[in-house]
Amino acid sequence: MNMITPLAPTIIDGKAEAAALTQQVAAETLALRSQGVIPGLAVVLVGSDPASAIYVRSKVRKTEAAGMKSFSHTLPAETSEEELLTLIRQLNADPEVHGILVQLPLPAHINRDAVLDTISPDKDVDGFHTVNAGKLAVGRTNGLIPCTPAGCLILLKRVISSFAGLHAVIIGCSNIVGRPMGRLLLNEGCTVVMTHLKTRDVAAEARRADILVVAAGHAHLVRKDWVKPGAVVIDVGINRIDTPDGPKITGDVAFDEVAGHAAAITPVPGGVGPMTIACLLKNTLQAARALTDKEASS
Amino acid sequence: MNMITPLAPTIIDGKAEAAALTQQVAAETLALRSQGVIPGLAVVLVGSDPASAIYVRSKVRKTEAAGMKSFSHTLPAETSEEELLTLIRQLNADPEVHGILVQLPLPAHINRDAVLDTISPDKDVDGFHTVNAGKLAVGRTNGLIPCTPAGCLILLKRVISSFAGLHAVIIGCSNIVGRPMGRLLLNEGCTVVMTHLKTRDVAAEARRADILVVAAGHAHLVRKDWVKPGAVVIDVGINRIDTPDGPKITGDVAFDEVAGHAAAITPVPGGVGPMTIACLLKNTLQAARALTDKEASS
Repeated sequence: MNMITPLAPTIIDGKAEAAALTQQVAAETLALRSQGVIPGLAVVLVGSDPASAIYVRSKVRKTEAAGMKSFSHTLPAETSEEELLTLIRQLNADPEVHGILVQLPLPAHINRDAVLDTISPDKDVDGFHTVNAGKLAVGRTNGLIPCTPAGCLILLKRVISSFAGLHAVIIGCSNIVGRPMGRLLLNEGCTVVMTHLKTRDVAAEARRADILVVAAGHAHLVRKDWVKPGAVVIDVGINRIDTPDGPKITGDVAFDEVAGHAAAITPVPGGVGPMTIACLLKNTLQAARALTDKEASS
Repeated sequence: MNMITPLAPTIIDGKAEAAALTQQVAAETLALRSQGVIPGLAVVLVGSDPASAIYVRSKVRKTEAAGMKSFSHTLPAETSEEELLTLIRQLNADPEVHGILVQLPLPAHINRDAVLDTISPDKDVDGFHTVNAGKLAVGRTNGLIPCTPAGCLILLKRVISSFAGLHAVIIGCSNIVGRPMGRLLLNEGCTVVMTHLKTRDVAAEARRADILVVAAGHAHLVRKDWVKPGAVVIDVGINRIDTPDGPKITGDVAFDEVAGHAAAITPVPGGVGPMTIACLLKNTLQAARALTDKEASS
């Protein structure tokens, strides 16, 4: 495909890309600290879901490793919505906090939308606030972008030099990945196809893709015959499956079949996953800079 | 196509649909007035563009005909951005005003985005505020939706009973029509394809559409061989062309070729156009109700 110039090996190394991005963020954080600003990220966890606890610990560790301040708030599962909103308002007002992340999922008695929209859009490092979703939707570039699609776009830019007119197909239309991914690629000039569970023939749509982003949450949904030779495939899936050798993490793409057939592909693990946290740090740095500039000009 | 149940004649009569919707809005306005609330729409025009002046007069007339209050503000072309923002803030604070519409385009020295985002999202009857774009983007139903795509969806619902899995192709990705239209149809369960000037083969995309929405601003771009037999075609284009019989308004679709081939089609004029103002009145009524409820509960 002449519109894609491979600049990197076929298997996109998300781990190496994330390490490079994290290093760059750490260097810029150091520079910002020398101006007296220490980027600070507050992570809020409600309840004791073990997977969420692992994610939160990992975020805290990487935040501190990048030279940022980390503020961890763990609340019991029975925390009321109003108590959570009160904490968020405190964090909104706290000048040491530049980013606020509320770990999802929340307990069922708490209205997720109300929580996400109470976070100041300026500190919304997950990019889930309506204002940030709206900025991305209308093509403004001054918002905070959800971390996973932002990471996917960085990986795509490693292997694609010009997006204009490329046919991008998104499988899975969540607000966390698929929808913002579609908006990012539309803003880059792609033709964008949004597919989901109701799409009649997802395989046929996938086969037409130059760029195929799969965020379906279905292990090995995408097989070789779903992929056009020379396509770039981004696998956002993280599925736990049982194998004869024990449990294993695998993606939404049948990697062994598709790699070599595609021009480039992300592995699972080691593809999109590491980029998500790196982009969280990048967003925190961006928020710290923007808030500092805002304060200076006010 | 078995997923589409024609409920109306082939040519979708936007004028009749708009009249019916306007009548319904007028009846509901009367009911609201009996509770002491008169929906009020403020229309702001900067400069003396003749086409804009015609639009504004038409909006004022139809607002009043629907039993609403109309507040018209015509400012000279040399109005500063700050003066315009001051007026908008006054209208935001005015309890008699439930909807605020700033007629576009604005003079070049005024930042359109700053103006649109100064309008209170609750009074943003054009649906162009970032918050309303964001609500639509994430699939929330409590926002104000841009009038033209809202009108297109109403027309589509007259001829389509179930949208789930239908293949919708949008030609033209503006923030006023194409992008919000794509979001509306995605929220309805369609597979959605966003095409634009950079798309390599728009005709090939169009030919795959069950629902084809054309907002390209290019007279007669869509010919018979762009349309799958049985598709539903919505023509948003309003183009002034010269003919041997004098100047004429025509759409983005070659109507004479496509009608009869498509299952249903909107004409130009008399299709989408009249729906836009009817939806503006509908949004003003919705805003008046929501603001009244908000006040009552505060």
